[in-house]
Amino acid sequence: MEGKNAGVSFIIMNEIVLPNDTNTFGNLMGGRLMYWMDIAAGMAAGKHCNFPSMTASVDNLSFKTPIKLGNVVHIEAKVSRAFTTSMEIHIKVWGEDLLKQYTYESNEAYFTFVALDPSGKPRSVPALIPETDEEKRIFDGALRRRQLRLILAGKMKPHDAAELKALFTTPESIGEEN
Amino acid sequence: MEGKNAGVSFIIMNEIVLPNDTNTFGNLMGGRLMYWMDIAAGMAAGKHCNFPSMTASVDNLSFKTPIKLGNVVHIEAKVSRAFTTSMEIHIKVWGEDLLKQYTYESNEAYFTFVALDPSGKPRSVPALIPETDEEKRIFDGALRRRQLRLILAGKMKPHDAAELKALFTTPESIGEEN
Amino acid sequence: MEGKNAGVSFIIMNEIVLPNDTNTFGNLMGGRLMYWMDIAAGMAAGKHCNFPSMTASVDNLSFKTPIKLGNVVHIEAKVSRAFTTSMEIHIKVWGEDLLKQYTYESNEAYFTFVALDPSGKPRSVPALIPETDEEKRIFDGALRRRQLRLILAGKMKPHDAAELKALFTTPESIGEEN
Amino acid sequence: MEGKNAGVSFIIMNEIVLPNDTNTFGNLMGGRLMYWMDIAAGMAAGKHCNFPSMTASVDNLSFKTPIKLGNVVHIEAKVSRAFTTSMEIHIKVWGEDLLKQYTYESNEAYFTFVALDPSGKPRSVPALIPETDEEKRIFDGALRRRQLRLILAGKMKPHDAAELKALFTTPESIGEEN
Amino acid sequence: MEGKNAGVSFIIMNEIVLPNDTNTFGNLMGGRLMYWMDIAAGMAAGKHCNFPSMTASVDNLSFKTPIKLGNVVHIEAKVSRAFTTSMEIHIKVWGEDLLKQYTYESNEAYFTFVALDPSGKPRSVPALIPETDEEKRIFDGALRRRQLRLILAGKMKPHDAAELKALFTTPESIGEEN
Amino acid sequence: MEGKNAGVSFIIMNEIVLPNDTNTFGNLMGGRLMYWMDIAAGMAAGKHCNFPSMTASVDNLSFKTPIKLGNVVHIEAKVSRAFTTSMEIHIKVWGEDLLKQYTYESNEAYFTFVALDPSGKPRSVPALIPETDEEKRIFDGALRRRQLRLILAGKMKPHDAAELKALFTTPESIGEEN
Repeated sequence: MEGKNAGVSFIIMNEIVLPNDTNTFGNLMGGRLMYWMDIAAGMAAGKHCNFPSMTASVDNLSFKTPIKLGNVVHIEAKVSRAFTTSMEIHIKVWGEDLLKQYTYESNEAYFTFVALDPSGKPRSVPALIPETDEEKRIFDGALRRRQLRLILAGKMKPHDAAELKALFTTPESIGEEN
Repeated sequence: MEGKNAGVSFIIMNEIVLPNDTNTFGNLMGGRLMYWMDIAAGMAAGKHCNFPSMTASVDNLSFKTPIKLGNVVHIEAKVSRAFTTSMEIHIKVWGEDLLKQYTYESNEAYFTFVALDPSGKPRSVPALIPETDEEKRIFDGALRRRQLRLILAGKMKPHDAAELKALFTTPESIGEEN
Repeated sequence: MEGKNAGVSFIIMNEIVLPNDTNTFGNLMGGRLMYWMDIAAGMAAGKHCNFPSMTASVDNLSFKTPIKLGNVVHIEAKVSRAFTTSMEIHIKVWGEDLLKQYTYESNEAYFTFVALDPSGKPRSVPALIPETDEEKRIFDGALRRRQLRLILAGKMKPHDAAELKALFTTPESIGEEN
Repeated sequence: MEGKNAGVSFIIMNEIVLPNDTNTFGNLMGGRLMYWMDIAAGMAAGKHCNFPSMTASVDNLSFKTPIKLGNVVHIEAKVSRAFTTSMEIHIKVWGEDLLKQYTYESNEAYFTFVALDPSGKPRSVPALIPETDEEKRIFDGALRRRQLRLILAGKMKPHDAAELKALFTTPESIGEEN
Repeated sequence: MEGKNAGVSFIIMNEIVLPNDTNTFGNLMGGRLMYWMDIAAGMAAGKHCNFPSMTASVDNLSFKTPIKLGNVVHIEAKVSRAFTTSMEIHIKVWGEDLLKQYTYESNEAYFTFVALDPSGKPRSVPALIPETDEEKRIFDGALRRRQLRLILAGKMKPHDAAELKALFTTPESIGEEN
Repeated sequence: MEGKNAGVSFIIMNEIVLPNDTNTFGNLMGGRLMYWMDIAAGMAAGKHCNFPSMTASVDNLSFKTPIKLGNVVHIEAKVSRAFTTSMEIHIKVWGEDLLKQYTYESNEAYFTFVALDPSGKPRSVPALIPETDEEKRIFDGALRRRQLRLILAGKMKPHDAAELKALFTTPESIGEEN
């Protein structure tokens, strides 16, 4: 299986916040946004591997600025790295107020999807080839995020996570690539 | 403001997986589950603080076993610790196949909600008083998870996270309480 | 087939009233509530018999206090008696205003579900064993409600409904167990 | 306030059963049908009184023949009698299989709606004038159904329900007009 | 295959405009109305041909008066002419304000559906027999509308559309039957 | 008010066809697609004029290839010309099968939106400046489409539509730019 460029998987969604998507403040509910992000991540994963796939995990995500009723939700998703049978997808979300004409960051996240064969077993996916500088930087951080996921899932001991451990003894931030 | 027992915020949701909630494998889509988890977390937060609140962040979550079409999704949410204006909510999700009569773990997560006053500014919430052994254990882990959130959000340097850092020099796992 | 305790079928749903669930007064529409009650009843029936089942009938239900937009809808369902192929499910609904901190009764109802085999024919279900005093009282009333259902469906003549008929010649109320 | 003819409130809905409306047998879920019936009843009530109104109660309803995925749900609603501030609405539901070309009865029910003034208090509605023989017959049965509703809601003692009581000492059926 | 009277396919839908159906002005969104019109057209097509069918095209439609939140959307659909494998359906939409008691035209459109056999290939449908004067007038205009559709789809040259071309050299309006 | 480049209004939507979006053939229903196209058109209009706006009309649209369940619906919308208070939006729709790796045209349409001031009255919008060759070609055709809309809405006589009339006497096709 040949590797594929990161750009192949890039996908854009734009949605309008409707009344039923909002909480009592008239802001987009977090759960509704995660629903859309999951759909965007699934499309990006499908574009990369051309197999059915499903959500395996979602990394820490924090909601910066609430998106208001009637505003546009702009979501961009792109596969950031492929492992044997799984893909990490990088997602960025902005709100846009078309009337007041400004755009604001809402959140950024990493979803992991696993490709499945017809019997529902994980199957190999093509490698991901990063091209731009940003794609390369995010590709490099993927190993560290993967160690963190494994530790948080109780599948790796913190002191075995060499790369991640280094962060706690150097002034560099884990969060910097977010 | 007096503290409140953890049990006060406990809430249960049960839902049935309908066709539109599933991916091509007939399994519940991750995004749809996160939507329900967010609603459950919001109700638990509301029961604790009696103020409107909104999703601030969601910790790493991994989907263990897919929940099938027609199965029951069982969600339990309870506030695990309160900080000045925010609450961490612990959520557990099971699937249940009523016909084959078995129940299986789906995932477990921590959501953080922030309480807001009528002008949309964060406001103080009551302290949380853990009572059972499990509530106390999860309450204690909340500081470490909070440090991790701050680091991942780029708001804290890893080497300043004393409690979290200790994990990388001891054989204990961050993920153990999950 | 062995009988099963009533408690086995007990199920709780909690939902938030969203804008699309409300009428022009900002109150939960009756039809939306009945939709949720039917899902709750179906889960309780499934927990009792472990077969697919479907709604056969719904007893008289009256809406006492409207549930407001943003309030929690709390639904509890439990099988109250099993007949040969059908189950009567007792459902109670409360509204809860998390901000003003009070809970109010919304309605109470009896749904009847029938269990079906793979060809869609009714199949036998386990007997129900009431344990608590309330379960026993509601179990006893089920015969009378069943006579009323048969009369209202035109399948029984009023003067053949011995137990129900007695109510009209004694000062006791049919409605008392509601 | 002048009385209004029953025909004024007559309303028809037709819907298609979509995948998300069905249970595991591919049949329309009872709860989804009740949701549609409630909307139909609300429109009929609105046509009669020209005030906002909301669901007060639903009489016993039994589901005769399940409606299949892809079939048409045909609902007819008409106010059957008006009381001081409430209206009883008679609803009939059929399924229609357009491919096999047959129509089948699904169920029949009586909903009661109450008219409200802007402060949410019950307000008077016009009297209903039945014209056809069927309208008159259903109009006449409304008093008996109202007594039954009051008894079932615990607001009337069975032995005070003169008209209803008579049914239990005569060979006539309560259910006959269903 | 025998022809069928136009009246056989006549179908009525009534819906209430709920919050999620509206734009920021509280008016029914055009897209939501087109969704309902398509369902109505599909039911009319199904009643005429008794085969599964799907949307092939939608003629120009203009939205005259916006329908307000809480108002009734009244849709009438009837097959206006059948061609070999396709049916033109005429749809009229009104809004109705039940409180202020007036009805207003919203729009009028022609949808074309094509009947399909189980392998998804177009199949013959019965001819349509117009009976009333209005049915005949609309039946006659169908040829002209079909020419326009073919031209707009790039499948016919304007100067080959004899009937349509005549309109541009006579004072009669294409739009008059709308 | 200064004119704006066409590219400013360009917007992309990507959606997945879920079970409830399909007809009995497992293909996307026309009405559901029109719902999404209307949202896309509304966002493009909002990006151009920065005012609230609503659907005024939809030009003839024909569905070429059905989009299958699970496929991606890719929608692109861009304002093609602005008139005094209205904007014509050009929309193109493709289906994409991620597993079989091919993309297919679904349809193409022109929606017209009108900008509104807070009292719901039409208000002026900026002129549209086409830049690319395709934008210029579509901009030029807009007058002809507008004449056709006016004729079809009964607001212009065919023999007054000079530009459109010319098409019927020359071998050029109205549909060619579709």
